[in-house]
Amino acid sequence: MFACIGYATESADQPLAPFSFERRDVGPTDVRIAISYCGVCHSDLHTARNEWKNTVYPCLPGHEIVGKVVEVGGEVAKFKVGDLAGVGCMVESCRTCPSCQEGLEQYCENGFVGTYNGVEKQTGKVTFGGYSKEIVVDEAFVLRLPENLELAAVAPLLCAGITTYSPLKHWKVGPGQKVGIVGLGGLGHMGVKLAHAMGAHVVLFTTSPNKVDDAKKLGADEVVISKDAAQMGAHAGSFDFILDCVAAQHDINEYLGLLKRDATLCQVGAPEDPLAVAVFSLIFKRRNFAGSLIGGIAETQEMLDFCGEHGITSEIEIIPIAEIETAYARMLKSDVKYRFVIDMATLKAAA
Amino acid sequence: MFACIGYATESADQPLAPFSFERRDVGPTDVRIAISYCGVCHSDLHTARNEWKNTVYPCLPGHEIVGKVVEVGGEVAKFKVGDLAGVGCMVESCRTCPSCQEGLEQYCENGFVGTYNGVEKQTGKVTFGGYSKEIVVDEAFVLRLPENLELAAVAPLLCAGITTYSPLKHWKVGPGQKVGIVGLGGLGHMGVKLAHAMGAHVVLFTTSPNKVDDAKKLGADEVVISKDAAQMGAHAGSFDFILDCVAAQHDINEYLGLLKRDATLCQVGAPEDPLAVAVFSLIFKRRNFAGSLIGGIAETQEMLDFCGEHGITSEIEIIPIAEIETAYARMLKSDVKYRFVIDMATLKAAA
Repeated sequence: MFACIGYATESADQPLAPFSFERRDVGPTDVRIAISYCGVCHSDLHTARNEWKNTVYPCLPGHEIVGKVVEVGGEVAKFKVGDLAGVGCMVESCRTCPSCQEGLEQYCENGFVGTYNGVEKQTGKVTFGGYSKEIVVDEAFVLRLPENLELAAVAPLLCAGITTYSPLKHWKVGPGQKVGIVGLGGLGHMGVKLAHAMGAHVVLFTTSPNKVDDAKKLGADEVVISKDAAQMGAHAGSFDFILDCVAAQHDINEYLGLLKRDATLCQVGAPEDPLAVAVFSLIFKRRNFAGSLIGGIAETQEMLDFCGEHGITSEIEIIPIAEIETAYARMLKSDVKYRFVIDMATLKAAA
Repeated sequence: MFACIGYATESADQPLAPFSFERRDVGPTDVRIAISYCGVCHSDLHTARNEWKNTVYPCLPGHEIVGKVVEVGGEVAKFKVGDLAGVGCMVESCRTCPSCQEGLEQYCENGFVGTYNGVEKQTGKVTFGGYSKEIVVDEAFVLRLPENLELAAVAPLLCAGITTYSPLKHWKVGPGQKVGIVGLGGLGHMGVKLAHAMGAHVVLFTTSPNKVDDAKKLGADEVVISKDAAQMGAHAGSFDFILDCVAAQHDINEYLGLLKRDATLCQVGAPEDPLAVAVFSLIFKRRNFAGSLIGGIAETQEMLDFCGEHGITSEIEIIPIAEIETAYARMLKSDVKYRFVIDMATLKAAA
């Protein structure tokens, strides 16, 4: 074990604060990464505050991790010291169930090990995430990063990027298709960029008229103000696919009605309470309402390569780690364009 | 025009009663059918009583029609006088939209013409359904019937049969699959028979312990009492497909949790109010919640041929037409095994 520092919280009602802990030593297949930046996902906040009722304390969040390899185990083949490397939402899975065998570790039938608030296979202890100086991860769960992108802006690809890329690929979004993205936040703005790069005609739905210009700059061909019934009605039955990135309670039926026959609305935003689904809307055009969770490791690598090729990164605001609670407060007011990323160089000063 | 008799109602609060009206004369592509039997679908009751708020009165229901051809137009190729013939839920569609061109007339983008309570293309008048002596339908919407089946028991195949057959085929149900059917009523009992004939391992879900024996006789390999949490839990994450035939409000999330990754629950029962869908259940296994509406004409013919080949008919209770209101009352109490069929020979005496 070796000493590490980070930012963690001891309970749901405590702010995140400097925290000292130990990481496991590098094993034969492990990669030790010095973390340069860590994106701030809404899940971090949910978990830190035990809003999903499953948090183990102390809790050290962060699963949009980018940095440099500082040590590798003797059997590591994919990485060498000095390489860029990334870690997303998972650090391990059973590797043997059908989902793992198919490269869909996010659906591991024995449960993947979360980058934080999971149970570390090697030590049996709770996993600590990316709001920290370093992390040790088996190379099977470490991603190679494109060299041509701004490193800080790559971090959110590890969660917000793959969460939107995976369903866009799974439902075969491409040229000639009309694709809707609901909500322009951390997930939605990546959805717009990725669907645009895949060649689709992208329509962004937002409740905020002041997001129209931004959405178009990010790659939306059209922007629909979702409160405007006439604008919504004009798109009835016309979408090949809709990716709904809204985690707040909202009327899903307004969007289901915009799908073509046999088309799918996929939810990646995860509202806490159930959504009311009007069954007639599904029946009359054989529509599908689905969900999707991040993406597998191979697909995450594919997404990163795709982003490198197309010059895609997240829109970010870099913060020092000492401002994490302020960032959370601003996220709760949707006051972020479009992802906070912690500059981990600020950790040493803060800790 | 020629004179016809049937049973119709003049308003939502009037019982069905003998009714005289006119049918259009047989045009070049029309088939005139003397109706032998007509199944009683829950939609008939909904429409007669204006429960979907779109009923045009007088209303003459019935869309599970079987009988004999008594006259054909000069250009009719598929039928000759004396042939058995059937008519289901549709008597016309635009025939030109993409859905019609693909043989999916039930999703006609200009709206198919319902066998009753639709607008007849040829006359501009409201369509009158199968609770009548005869009907005139364009041959494109008339089905050939297997000769080897009990005719009365074929009638419900035209709606209950195709409504369950079409999603079972669309989601590729077959040998080696575990398929759930929710609810053992008019639709559900056909779902059990058809999924069994397609080679699937069929699990019937019911709230009624007294339906267990029946379900097994009809083809269910297992029966789960859905109120029993332990029985339900034993099937978590194990289904390739679930067909939900329940039109009453119910907890869909109990069933979504039984699906494998990437599997679909398709709703063919149509609850009036929206169903609450727990989004996490969809997200964590990329599950799909879908709907399906009857089936196209070509697929309906395929279903009838399949039923002929496998000796499949509906379980029925034959009633005289004068007892239709009693039948409706019993349907509302689920007191029918499993479909009422009107013996149309009783019409002359009643009218």
